[in-house]
Amino acid sequence: MAFELRDRDLLGRIGRLTTMGGEVETPAFMPVINPISQVISPSRMKKEFGCDIVITNSYIIRKNFGEKPNLDVHRLLDYDGVVVTDSGAYQILVYGGVEVTQDEIIDFQKGIGSDIAIILDIPTGWDVPRERVEWTVEETLRRARDALPLIEGSRALWVGPVQGGRHLDLVARSAKLVGDMPFQIHALGSPTEVMERYMFPVLVDMIMAAKLNLPPERPLHLFGAGHPMMFSLAVALGCDLFDSASYALYAKDDRYLTTMGTSRMEDLSYLPCSCPVCHRRSAENLKEMTKGERERLLAEHNLHACMTEINTIKQAIVEGSLWDLVERRSRGHPSMTAALKRLTNYKDAIEEGTPLFKGHGVFYYDYHSMARPEVTRYHRLLEANYSPPAGADTLLLVKAPSTRPYRADPAYRELWKTLSTELGEIFDGLHICFYAPPYGCIPEDLSETYPLSQYDIAEPVDEETIEFTAQSVARHIGLGGFNRVVLHQGVERLDMMVAEASREACKKLGMIMEASGSTHPWGEEATSSLLALLRRPASLQ
Amino acid sequence: MAFELRDRDLLGRIGRLTTMGGEVETPAFMPVINPISQVISPSRMKKEFGCDIVITNSYIIRKNFGEKPNLDVHRLLDYDGVVVTDSGAYQILVYGGVEVTQDEIIDFQKGIGSDIAIILDIPTGWDVPRERVEWTVEETLRRARDALPLIEGSRALWVGPVQGGRHLDLVARSAKLVGDMPFQIHALGSPTEVMERYMFPVLVDMIMAAKLNLPPERPLHLFGAGHPMMFSLAVALGCDLFDSASYALYAKDDRYLTTMGTSRMEDLSYLPCSCPVCHRRSAENLKEMTKGERERLLAEHNLHACMTEINTIKQAIVEGSLWDLVERRSRGHPSMTAALKRLTNYKDAIEEGTPLFKGHGVFYYDYHSMARPEVTRYHRLLEANYSPPAGADTLLLVKAPSTRPYRADPAYRELWKTLSTELGEIFDGLHICFYAPPYGCIPEDLSETYPLSQYDIAEPVDEETIEFTAQSVARHIGLGGFNRVVLHQGVERLDMMVAEASREACKKLGMIMEASGSTHPWGEEATSSLLALLRRPASLQ
Repeated sequence: MAFELRDRDLLGRIGRLTTMGGEVETPAFMPVINPISQVISPSRMKKEFGCDIVITNSYIIRKNFGEKPNLDVHRLLDYDGVVVTDSGAYQILVYGGVEVTQDEIIDFQKGIGSDIAIILDIPTGWDVPRERVEWTVEETLRRARDALPLIEGSRALWVGPVQGGRHLDLVARSAKLVGDMPFQIHALGSPTEVMERYMFPVLVDMIMAAKLNLPPERPLHLFGAGHPMMFSLAVALGCDLFDSASYALYAKDDRYLTTMGTSRMEDLSYLPCSCPVCHRRSAENLKEMTKGERERLLAEHNLHACMTEINTIKQAIVEGSLWDLVERRSRGHPSMTAALKRLTNYKDAIEEGTPLFKGHGVFYYDYHSMARPEVTRYHRLLEANYSPPAGADTLLLVKAPSTRPYRADPAYRELWKTLSTELGEIFDGLHICFYAPPYGCIPEDLSETYPLSQYDIAEPVDEETIEFTAQSVARHIGLGGFNRVVLHQGVERLDMMVAEASREACKKLGMIMEASGSTHPWGEEATSSLLALLRRPASLQ
Repeated sequence: MAFELRDRDLLGRIGRLTTMGGEVETPAFMPVINPISQVISPSRMKKEFGCDIVITNSYIIRKNFGEKPNLDVHRLLDYDGVVVTDSGAYQILVYGGVEVTQDEIIDFQKGIGSDIAIILDIPTGWDVPRERVEWTVEETLRRARDALPLIEGSRALWVGPVQGGRHLDLVARSAKLVGDMPFQIHALGSPTEVMERYMFPVLVDMIMAAKLNLPPERPLHLFGAGHPMMFSLAVALGCDLFDSASYALYAKDDRYLTTMGTSRMEDLSYLPCSCPVCHRRSAENLKEMTKGERERLLAEHNLHACMTEINTIKQAIVEGSLWDLVERRSRGHPSMTAALKRLTNYKDAIEEGTPLFKGHGVFYYDYHSMARPEVTRYHRLLEANYSPPAGADTLLLVKAPSTRPYRADPAYRELWKTLSTELGEIFDGLHICFYAPPYGCIPEDLSETYPLSQYDIAEPVDEETIEFTAQSVARHIGLGGFNRVVLHQGVERLDMMVAEASREACKKLGMIMEASGSTHPWGEEATSSLLALLRRPASLQ
């Protein structure tokens, strides 16, 4: 197996990709190497930047060095890591065509010893009519099929690209059909324009259309992605490889990359970075240099920024905090925040990718965090698997007390003691659940399990979270099986919204919700009125 | 003047502090130097870490080296930057008392050539009864007054500390009274426990209680703050100086600081950093070292993390993006998010601190961003200064079109043309305003001014932002002066909420709001119905 999974979080994973040129850990950023001239040499990239994998262009190599005998791409680049070669598809995108057939370029890539090679696909491009998009998808699929006999037995790993641009149905079709072919790696094409236009919600949809239709066990490469601001988002959606020349192109244009965005060198008065370039230099130093000297250093800084972010992402996967990292990076630009909001549409897939337990408490920042896998999972499992204890015919919904685990809270213990000693067999018929944001309805007997007592939430909670909590309580009532629903509530907005949603849910079942509570739902008075309520027969419709 | 402001954003500022030992740029982090033994030498701190200012303890120096003749703190530390000396107050906090009088320690600090010196205040501490808190405040004030004749003519800058802990009224009193005395610098005491317990909303209140009662032109030092996660928040609230031994203490405890929080070394598989320590080492390398060697390197990494964050903050102040940085850092822990929410309470002060225009577009991420100074300022100025054009008696509220500036949007131009040619003198009586999140009501003639066309907003917008927008429209109606209010709306939730709030606002003025609109408010049909509506006489109550 060429790709072995080591760890995962959300749809992101740490993997080990074995190629004939060596092993590479993913997620990995692959700097694009111009085979003719380089601002940072590939051997320095490996030694000083930790780049174990790079990508170069076989079409350009063939054009410039094609006549050389025994051409080897590793020797040509003076690089002893893993080399990926692109095929000229980028040149098709930019110049409309290439002077090479797919058969020729596949043969050439085999001949120069590429570790990972790419068929000659047709990039969809941007702003093209749907018929043209359809043609790029079908032609790419045809070429993928044509390539199969040529690459059979090749020692390289071969990449089957996915096209379709922002036409999600075509991306899905492209992914499904190429995923059925025996490629070892897939790649999603044409996201560059989407990224340059800051259309990150569209990027989320494109990646997911590909991801959900490709074999999950194969690595997914996002073509042309080279900004550290968006790596964590793409990894969270299941991308394993990135490539770009942005580190050098931005440098040429006097631009400085960070996980927060892009700065023009002229706007920098301080360097917000501790990399080897920035650590002992000031912004002033950089500005005073010659353009060429600055370009080289900016390229180095930009590459450090990319490589450090990959390490940050890997660490987040290991500790189970990739969601938190994506939230942080989503404040680089409102379009990144919009992308975070878009993740809600894929919360089931995200939950599926996430291991059950990482020992990491859950941080709930605000309504964006509703789509966290821990929250989705709790709701799914509660609805699918939980049954109230046998004999429980009254659902008692109690406002969650102030300390966790709720069940062990001293004020709740008092209430519980009073109910259990005073109510006799009525008590045996009670199914007690707490309600609290963001989990909603929490059966008392689950309240000590992960993550129901291992979370922190930012207060006061927002309107969306209140509504989400209320709806979760309503769904639990909707599961049915109770003769009676009693709400023991406080007087805050959350309590009002939970009461309203619960009343609605009861009504649908032909029941009347009963409520007790007060400003001090844990006081003696409130406890007495709850006792009295529970002793009375249930309200009738 | 010892402190000169160079730039500002929110309540944060870049300043130049002139001392007899040299100049220091603020905000500045001052590592605590143990005068007896150091894990990183002060001279290396200056050369390799850019620490132009450090803090040490005059009480400990006096105890250990007090007998030496001609003792000089710069020579003792072998450090040629600015040296601050604490007075033993920390020892009072920890050990309950010190074996020195204030007169003695003030004299001693003058004698050893401290550049910045601190009187012997009484730290409030944590979890102490209010009477004790009151005593610490009054005793600190008494000592501040007593110190005045002693420090008169001193070449050092003297710090007047503020105490009061979480008792905000006492913090305010302490700040007000010490601020009336001729100190050059102030410091807020006792935040350490608040920070260690992750009570960041309380920290916000404490800092603001001090800041709003101190002379704004003097630097404010936050005692004991040493975590890069919270520097940007504290700077945004007007803190200029930080000191802590945390870089070394955390290292001793095998902990690794980042702007995202604290990691235990044992939990790190990758190093999410490119500083000189982390750049060419792996987490494995660090784990395999001897404890002592690792402690030294972790202290270096932790100090790099602090110093780099200070540069990041300074750059954010220069470009006017400190708010964005605070939002990013607020995802380090839910308590930091809660602190961000707390900023809403101080949005007027935050607005006041922020320059009018930095050329930087406004990023609106979600409801937290409602407290951004640009948003607060727009609402304040609109309500205080804006008058509709003379003769305008009908307020026409139009859903904002899809491109900015709204006034130049092609669909809006069409609508405007139709109205102006068809309506005759009715048109002259129109005051046209757009409504859009987050600014709410935007008079057409302002729609091209900053920041009304220079912003990006993450869509879809949240419930709080919708409500905020609707209320802003309602307030504009409430300003009065119109005979008639007409809403030309769409059919989304925002439109419904704006309609509801506008109807309420009209009702209070004894008017009936009139509405037109449709799913396509820019279509021909919607334009015709708006024309018809405007031609009819106003609805009567």
